[in-house]
Amino acid sequence: MRFFVPFDARDPKTRLDSILDDDERREFARAMLADVLAAVRGADHEPTVLATGPTEVDAPVIVDDRPLTPAVDDAFADSDRPVGLVVADCPLATPAAVDRLVAVDAAVTLAPGLGGGTNAIVARTDEFRVDFHGVSIRDHRDRARAAGVDAATVDSFRLALDVDEPADLAEVLLHGEGTAARWLREAGVDLAVTDGRVEPTRRGETGE
Amino acid sequence: MRFFVPFDARDPKTRLDSILDDDERREFARAMLADVLAAVRGADHEPTVLATGPTEVDAPVIVDDRPLTPAVDDAFADSDRPVGLVVADCPLATPAAVDRLVAVDAAVTLAPGLGGGTNAIVARTDEFRVDFHGVSIRDHRDRARAAGVDAATVDSFRLALDVDEPADLAEVLLHGEGTAARWLREAGVDLAVTDGRVEPTRRGETGE
Repeated sequence: MRFFVPFDARDPKTRLDSILDDDERREFARAMLADVLAAVRGADHEPTVLATGPTEVDAPVIVDDRPLTPAVDDAFADSDRPVGLVVADCPLATPAAVDRLVAVDAAVTLAPGLGGGTNAIVARTDEFRVDFHGVSIRDHRDRARAAGVDAATVDSFRLALDVDEPADLAEVLLHGEGTAARWLREAGVDLAVTDGRVEPTRRGETGE
Repeated sequence: MRFFVPFDARDPKTRLDSILDDDERREFARAMLADVLAAVRGADHEPTVLATGPTEVDAPVIVDDRPLTPAVDDAFADSDRPVGLVVADCPLATPAAVDRLVAVDAAVTLAPGLGGGTNAIVARTDEFRVDFHGVSIRDHRDRARAAGVDAATVDSFRLALDVDEPADLAEVLLHGEGTAARWLREAGVDLAVTDGRVEPTRRGETGE
């Protein structure tokens, strides 16, 4: 099945700027993208990067600088069913998690992201339109209901974790096995235990 | 199988004090406990509440005021194998999620919690000891390795979400179907969409 992987080619992951500078955030975003592409391919599907600007990557790329919602709707409209999507900032994705997403037997399968987002979709119907504004998991459920199609949810922590904020990096360090986790370690990002949940911290240098 | 459900009967969920007062936090903690007990029972297992103090609840209760690690170790030691655990502040737990935890064929199965915690365990061996200090998911993996037993992980968002911070309430409102979600709605806690992830907010009153 074809899987679109939306990718911000311009100024990705600005909310990580307390830990990573501009160039690093671009590099790290590419590392996360590589992990998502590997997860999709590992599950025997074909990823296409849906990028906001020119992107050199070892996969087919469609450049569409419109907001995510019309870009994905048009990409889906031009594709056979079933068709899938995994966001590019989901570096804990594994082939097994993608398999579980695809295995759900529903017209639309959604993987919720932390904080109300939608991190992955499989659509088996033409009737479904995406909506990535606001609380998209709620909006996607509403849209499926309005279209009269059943929407199911896959229960996956690996697909729920999209990286937006520094705290999310701790999850990548704890549970990641791919390019993004390796990139963070090499950049000197490490875990610090606070009184609550673990947080990322950064050494001045990576050496020693 | 017997499932222990550790429960703080004294001053639960202090980090929610910006949204809920003392009595409310106690009520809400009880609502979350009810959801976890229902999930364990719905999966045909027998929950026992492992409480830090006297707790009136419709389930067997063991009172142990020691820290979580020795309390759980002793409760496990007194139980047949396999034996399980789900923390009480995990209100998105469902019978299906507990089924998936139990279905993993490993000496020890762990459900990671957000921020490095461990929210659920199934142990099929006597050789495993728990460690709830610090980054417990990492410590539990290390302990399994040190004991020479295999530790697997279940990929579940529903088991990963333990409620510690106000932002976690948004997940309960978005994905909860049980007592805790209902309690929050009746208490007037609702979703607010910020520029990033969705956050909980609270109306002055629930009525008109």
